[in-house]
Amino acid sequence: MKLSDGVEWGVHVVTLLAYLPEDRALTSARLAEYHGVPAAYLAKHLQALSRAEILESVQGPRGGYRLARPPATVTVLDVVEAIEGTEPAFRCTEIRRRGPGARPAREYPLPCAIDRVMRSADTVWRASLGAVTIADLTSAVGRDAPPKSLVAGAEWMREALR
Amino acid sequence: MKLSDGVEWGVHVVTLLAYLPEDRALTSARLAEYHGVPAAYLAKHLQALSRAEILESVQGPRGGYRLARPPATVTVLDVVEAIEGTEPAFRCTEIRRRGPGARPAREYPLPCAIDRVMRSADTVWRASLGAVTIADLTSAVGRDAPPKSLVAGAEWMREALR
Repeated sequence: MKLSDGVEWGVHVVTLLAYLPEDRALTSARLAEYHGVPAAYLAKHLQALSRAEILESVQGPRGGYRLARPPATVTVLDVVEAIEGTEPAFRCTEIRRRGPGARPAREYPLPCAIDRVMRSADTVWRASLGAVTIADLTSAVGRDAPPKSLVAGAEWMREALR
Repeated sequence: MKLSDGVEWGVHVVTLLAYLPEDRALTSARLAEYHGVPAAYLAKHLQALSRAEILESVQGPRGGYRLARPPATVTVLDVVEAIEGTEPAFRCTEIRRRGPGARPAREYPLPCAIDRVMRSADTVWRASLGAVTIADLTSAVGRDAPPKSLVAGAEWMREALR
C-alpha cells in the first residue's frame, strides 16, 4: 500500500502557496521548479486540487494557481482526499458470502466484522490528518526550516512574482 | 491507495483457522475453496503468513496450514503487516531539500513536518488494527454470522478434516 507521490507534492504545493501575497498566483511551471518535480505530473495534481476547491486558477499574465481559501481552513486530509480520493484503502468484497457457508445477502444485516475493524482504522487515520491544517504546516516550516532556506525561498518567490 | 486483496483473504483465512481443532490443518486448496478465492494467489499470501509466524505449515497426509499461535495473540495488524509489509503508506522523498531553497541535509535535524503528520496518522492506523485480535473476530463472527452459515461452515470443516 502506497500513497501516490502526488500526495507529497500536493501538500508541499499548498503549503508554499500559503506564503503567497494576496491576489498573486504561481504558475504550474514555477511550482514544479520550486519543488523539483516533473511539471507534467504536477499539473495533473494541481487540477485535482482545483476541482476540490483547495486551489483556484487565475487567468492572464499574472495567472497561475493560488489558494482558494485561507490555509487555516484547509486540512492535510483535504489535500490527501483531493489527490487520492475518499475511498477507504480496504475494500470488502464480501468473502463471507462465498463458499460453503454462503447465505443470501439479507441474512447479513451488519457489515462484515473484518470490514468494521478496517473502517475504524481508516476513520482514525482520516481524523488524524483532518486535525492538521495548512496553517499548522506553515508554522512548523517557520520553526524548523533552515534559516537560509527560508531566505532563499523568499528570494525565489520575489523573483517569480515580478 | 488500496490494500491488496490479500489482506482481506489473509484475515478471513486466519479467522477460519482459529476454529480448527488442535493439531489439525487445512490445505491451501481447501482454504481457497472455503473463501471462494483463486488458489494460486492465496498460496502466495499463505506463505507470507507463514514467514510472519502467524501460520505454520504441516507436512504429511493430514498436512496443510494451521495457526502458529493462539488467536488471542494475533492482531489484525499482524496479518496486515505480514501481507502488506510494515512500510508506511506515505514515503517522504525530501522534497524540501530540492529546488531553490535546498540546503545540505545536516541543516534539517527534524523530519519534514509533512512527513511527521503522515507518520502520526500511520501510527494511529496501526494502533487501531493492533487493538483487535483474531479471537475478537471469531467472537464477532459467532455473534453476527447467519446461524445457517455457521452450521454449513462447521459441516464443511468436518468433511474437510476427515
